[in-house]
Order: sequence, then C-alpha cells, then structure tokens
Amino acid sequence: MSLYVMKFGGSSVGDTERMKRVAKRVVEKQSEGHQCVVVVSAMGDTTDELIDQAKLLNEQLPARELDMLMTTGEQISIALLSMAIQQLGHEAVSFTGWQAGFRTESDFGRARITDIQPQRVLDALSSNKIVVVAGFQGMSADGDITTLGRGGSDTTAVALAAAIQADACEIYTDVDGIYSTDPRIVKVARKLKEISYDEMLELANLGAAVLHPRAVEYAKHNRVPLIVRSSFNHNEGTVVKEDAVMEQGVVVSGIAYDKNVARISILGVADIPGVLAKVFGTLAAAKIDVDIIVQSGVEAGKADFSFTVALTDREAALKTLEGIRGELPYREVTSEENLVKVSIVGAGMVSHPGVAAQMFAVLAEQGVSIKMVSTSEIKVSCVIEAGKLHEVIQALHTAYNLDTEEQAFVGGPKDRR
Amino acid sequence: MSLYVMKFGGSSVGDTERMKRVAKRVVEKQSEGHQCVVVVSAMGDTTDELIDQAKLLNEQLPARELDMLMTTGEQISIALLSMAIQQLGHEAVSFTGWQAGFRTESDFGRARITDIQPQRVLDALSSNKIVVVAGFQGMSADGDITTLGRGGSDTTAVALAAAIQADACEIYTDVDGIYSTDPRIVKVARKLKEISYDEMLELANLGAAVLHPRAVEYAKHNRVPLIVRSSFNHNEGTVVKEDAVMEQGVVVSGIAYDKNVARISILGVADIPGVLAKVFGTLAAAKIDVDIIVQSGVEAGKADFSFTVALTDREAALKTLEGIRGELPYREVTSEENLVKVSIVGAGMVSHPGVAAQMFAVLAEQGVSIKMVSTSEIKVSCVIEAGKLHEVIQALHTAYNLDTEEQAFVGGPKDRR
Repeated sequence: MSLYVMKFGGSSVGDTERMKRVAKRVVEKQSEGHQCVVVVSAMGDTTDELIDQAKLLNEQLPARELDMLMTTGEQISIALLSMAIQQLGHEAVSFTGWQAGFRTESDFGRARITDIQPQRVLDALSSNKIVVVAGFQGMSADGDITTLGRGGSDTTAVALAAAIQADACEIYTDVDGIYSTDPRIVKVARKLKEISYDEMLELANLGAAVLHPRAVEYAKHNRVPLIVRSSFNHNEGTVVKEDAVMEQGVVVSGIAYDKNVARISILGVADIPGVLAKVFGTLAAAKIDVDIIVQSGVEAGKADFSFTVALTDREAALKTLEGIRGELPYREVTSEENLVKVSIVGAGMVSHPGVAAQMFAVLAEQGVSIKMVSTSEIKVSCVIEAGKLHEVIQALHTAYNLDTEEQAFVGGPKDRR
Repeated sequence: MSLYVMKFGGSSVGDTERMKRVAKRVVEKQSEGHQCVVVVSAMGDTTDELIDQAKLLNEQLPARELDMLMTTGEQISIALLSMAIQQLGHEAVSFTGWQAGFRTESDFGRARITDIQPQRVLDALSSNKIVVVAGFQGMSADGDITTLGRGGSDTTAVALAAAIQADACEIYTDVDGIYSTDPRIVKVARKLKEISYDEMLELANLGAAVLHPRAVEYAKHNRVPLIVRSSFNHNEGTVVKEDAVMEQGVVVSGIAYDKNVARISILGVADIPGVLAKVFGTLAAAKIDVDIIVQSGVEAGKADFSFTVALTDREAALKTLEGIRGELPYREVTSEENLVKVSIVGAGMVSHPGVAAQMFAVLAEQGVSIKMVSTSEIKVSCVIEAGKLHEVIQALHTAYNLDTEEQAFVGGPKDRR
C-alpha cells in the first residue's frame, strides 16, 4: 500500500463529466490498494468568471476580498468531487485549505506556506477515506483566507505530499508527461521517462508550462517524487526525482523556449561603484524580475549593459529607469522586442564539454545571430530573434539526438494554476 | 451613533447592479454616523445552480459536502459586496460564518447555533470598517462548515445583532414591511407600523413568508428590535418589538393563510391509553410536523381523530401510518387536499372576547364550512376549503377594520433563505 497525492488541474475538472472521470480515476487508485489524497483546482473558467464579476464592482480588485472570492472556486470543486466519489460507493471527505492545515503568510494573492498541520487529513486517511483538498489556498495567522498565487495548486499538492510523507505526488494534466521540447513545435518530441529536479527546475523556469518552478523547488527540497501524467489516459508519465537515470547518449534532456522576453540596454552609464546595485535594486523594488544581465566593456569611464525582463514588464522597466535618471546619469536607454529565449537543459552537460559550442554552431547554421547568452551547470540559454524559433528548435532537437518515432499526445488548454 | 445589523437577501443582491445599490445603501447608513454590519445571502439563483450541478454527480446530495458547496454562495456575495463598498471609498471587510465566530451543532443542512464569538467583527467595527458577514453558515466543533437551514440568513443577522448588542436588526427585503395580509390578495392591505414578537411569530408560523419564525424567536428571546423594510426604496418599514403599540380600534393585526396543508383522519381507532402518543411519536420520528389535532367522540371503544400536516408531507404521513397498522389497529385512514388554513392574529384578542365568534360568522356569511379550528391566546386558525380563499380573506380584512387607502408595494420574487 502506498500513499499518493493526486493533483488535478482546472481543465481536468472542467465540467461534471470530467469530474466523474476524475472520481473514477481516484477510486481505481484506491481499489488498487492505495491511500489517496486528491488536490483539485477550480473548475475550468470559474476563476475568470468570478474575476470578471468582481471587476464590475471594483476595478482595483482589493487583494483580501479577491482571495475570499477566488477560493470559492476550489471549494466548489472539492465538494462536487467528493460527492462524485461517494456516488461510486467510496467514502470521501473534502477539506478547504485551512481545514487541511495550510497556514500561510498574509500576503494576499501570493501567500507563502509557513506551516502545514495535516492532522485532519491523516485522521481521515486512517479511517479509509479518500481525502479531497482545495488547492491554491490557505489561512493566515490572522485567520484570513489567502491564495498561494501562480502554481498554487501544484504547490499545495507537493507541500501536502511532503507533510504527510506521501510516497509520490502525481500531477495529472493535459499532456502525457514532460517532453524533450514543445510537441506542438516538434512532432517527434520525446517523452522523458525520468528527469532530475534540477533539470525540471530549469525547464520550468525556462517556460515549460507543465509544472510550476515553485512546486518543483518544494518537491526537490522535500525529496517528494513527482509524477507528471495525463488525466485523459493511463499512459506512464514522467517521473521527476533526485537521481534520474540518464538515457544512453542523451546529454541534453530538453529544449525550452520563452517568448515573454524583452531586452533593455542602458548605454553610456558612468562606471562608478554601486551602479549595478542601484539599477537592479530599483527594478527589484518595482517587482520587476531581471533575467540575463550582460555588461560590455568600459570605455572612457562609461559602460553599456543589457538585461532581459519579461515582455510584459518592459514598459514598467523603462518607466522605472526614467525615474532614476537624475541619480544615475546615462546616455540612452533602448529596448528590443520580438525576441525569444531558447534553452537547452541537461544534467549530462557537466561531464560533456562542448555542448554549448554545439548549440552556437546549430544557431549559426540556421543563420541566427545570438543577442545574449547565459549559462549554468546544466543549461545554456540564448536570446535570439523570434522569427526562426521553430526551425531552431527543430534543429537543436535533432542535433542533441532527441528525435523519436512516437507522436506526442497533446490535450486541451493548459491549466492556469 | 447606533450599531445596526442590516440583512439583505438573495434577490436584493441578485446581480452586480443590485449589489452596487446595496453597497450604496450601507454606505449611506454609515455616513449618517452609524456602525454597520451587513449580512448577505447568496446571489439570486446561485444556490439552485450549485444544487443542480451537484445532482448531476450525486442524487443523494451528501449533507456535509452539500454544506461545503452551498456556503460558497454567500462567500462570493460577501467578497463582492465588500469590494463594491470599498469602491465607494469606505473601508469594508468580509467574514465567512466561521470567521465571524458562528459555532454550530454538526447537523449539516440545519445546524443550530451553539455560540457566537464575534471578536473579529467587533475589532473591525472599532477600526471604523463596515463588516460584511456571510449569512446562513457556521462551523461545527469538529471544524466542519455547516449551514443553518431555512431562514438561516435572517437568523444569522438576528443572532449576530444579539451577540454584538446592536441597537436594531434591519431585514431588507422585497416588500415594504409586514402587512395586515397578503397585498397580492387584498389591495387595501395595511402596512403595520409596529407588531409584537408574539404576533409576528404567529404570522410567520402561519405562512407569512417575510420573516422566518426561527429568526423571530431568536429576536424575541434576545430582545433585538427587528425592522422589516424594502431594499428598493426608503419607506419606513415595520418594527417588530416587545411592546408594540396597538393602533386604535385594531384588535386583529393580521390575517395569514397557508395553502400547504392536508388533513388526515384516522377512523375507528381502539381507544386505549397511549394511542395518541404512539401515532404522533411515530410521525415525529419520521420528521413529519403535525399541526392542528382534533379528536372526535369515542363510540363503542373506538375513536376518530384528525390532524393536519404540510401538503408536501401527506404521502409520507400516510405511508408512516400504514407502517404501524399492525401495532395500532384502526378501521380506515382518509386524507383531504385542496384546503387552506386561514388565521387571524392579534395581541388585542386577549382582552376582546368574541373575536373568534366574529370570524366564524364571516365564514358562515361566505358560505364556507369550517373543517378544523385551533386557537391560542393571540390567534384563531380555521381550516377551510381552498376555493373561496380570496373572498374569505377580503371579508375578514374588512370585518376587522384592517382596510386602508394606501396601495401596497410588492417587489420581486421572495428570498429563499
């Protein structure tokens, strides 16, 4: 007997028919002799509909009240799923985030989990019940209802799995597992059997939307094996774990891309101590994440440097820089769109020199010039013009021996939480 | 400065436009220098829609999960209303039932309040916030979410008013106040300025749907003045309180009717001790409420008796009686539909003999035969055939000097909670 946490996203419980299918799936698992905790998101478009209604009343969407509103979405899901499981003759009980023991900070809309007290979950499991828990939510020390923000339901599942020492956390989604790259671009993308937390983390951070990086970090930190699999079929998924076995001849595990990228360059900045700290400290204070930073040579006491931000943060970043012009004289700020960041990720890189060089060669063959480069032990990222994205990914996929014969299964729309 | 609890039902917050109107109303009250706690129901048809969805998954509607589901309706309302109030520049904070301190028994679907710990409500009031509380819900000692059942939102408002020692509890509804009778039947029905708890209780129990008897009892017990008024206009409503002033020449305050009534007769029962206890004990065990009971004379050791039940309980009552035929021999059970119970209510009756006789005379004039009679100190009820209901109510209204010149205001559909 194993203890599983099974997480189903919003599209997996999008309507009552899908809800029934999830109930059946969970009941099958219990019937195989396992203990089951199910974490669910709000049904399909519920969250968006609630937000639309709220906007009619208050464009500002006050954060505390928005969390009060949004958490009803998951509460509806847990009640209905619990009923659907009971209909199949199995015992089930639903818990909201606070009932399942999720304690969080009080930063509404993106509260971090401080503590989980899962006694009610454990008690229900020991009386042979299927436990259905609302994802994405918790309670602050003041007794206010909070939400965990983006990736919150995945994080709920992983954190709960850690707290109750589950044998694994299964993330059911609309794809069959983690692929070597986006199967919508590369038809012969390869489904990975296993992948390490670190590789998954790089892929997740680099724009592979299946798992949220926060959930992967939580899993890595607590050594919770993650299984990413489809809620629409029984195919084996991808196991994310510490000591993932590398496949023969595969140095690069996956290729990710991120279109939400813009480059900003600050030209002719006085090269005085603390200048970088000033620029990036101000951007951080404005909650603008900066990714790749490149400084070019200093000439006549003036330096140029460039960095990337999310495309959606571009305007805010430019405005922020304009605001500090008085304190930090520079000649000019420029920015560039229509870019994409392409990354190769693989734990095997560490022991295989020349992997980055191979990437640059492939890009050169495609006639693509590289705007910026960033590397870590297990990844290389290049910012390039967006125009040739598909060709580049295809070429890299082939170059790193990732092509396979199988056709990837791609389901419906992505879950948002 | 007074402290008010203001309760708005589901039709008053049926859509975002109505929600805005409620927000404006509450803000006006605070701007007049008062402290305000608002209790709201679920928006319009939300509850029915949730139940419809649940039925697709489990016809049984398991009670605990149903409460988990239904309470989201009010949670959505409080979040939205709170946002709407903030939009008007006033501070507001929403609380679910459990956050507002409502502790209940754990009988899901109809939990009784055991205790209210309103500290959070009081704290928010003292920092000048408008407090928005979800009606109809609480939390059991086990930490489960419960609902209070029928009349639950009125009860929430009254109970909270008692707990925080509010100066009054205003029930905003779709009618202007309490009328001498149903204004849809009698165009010249009189809006009552004041009415006593006991009279209101009789009227509420007798089918006047504006206030739930449970809420009135709570108000009477805790001496909370109730004000019933319209959410659609600023007309003065009706005050329900202990020492209501009787209007000159008015002995009967109101005339109520209830169409949900059936008569059941058990004929030829052995007249042995304990026979009534057996019959009504069994019906009570089956959760069938019995109203008027009449026993006719005993002949040859056999008695006949009749009683009324809700029309909706008729089938269940007949089945229950069939089930005890073995233990309690009787000759025959008959039942009758198409009945209505008409009642006159008035605190003045106590000191005015002949009020009942006048009622019987009016019925006789209308050629209506009386099937059953029941009286208390402040009411007389007669069960009659339903056919002449309108004429009878008109005639009684005139006979007891209740007709007025004003036209009653009657709003939209009734609130259900």
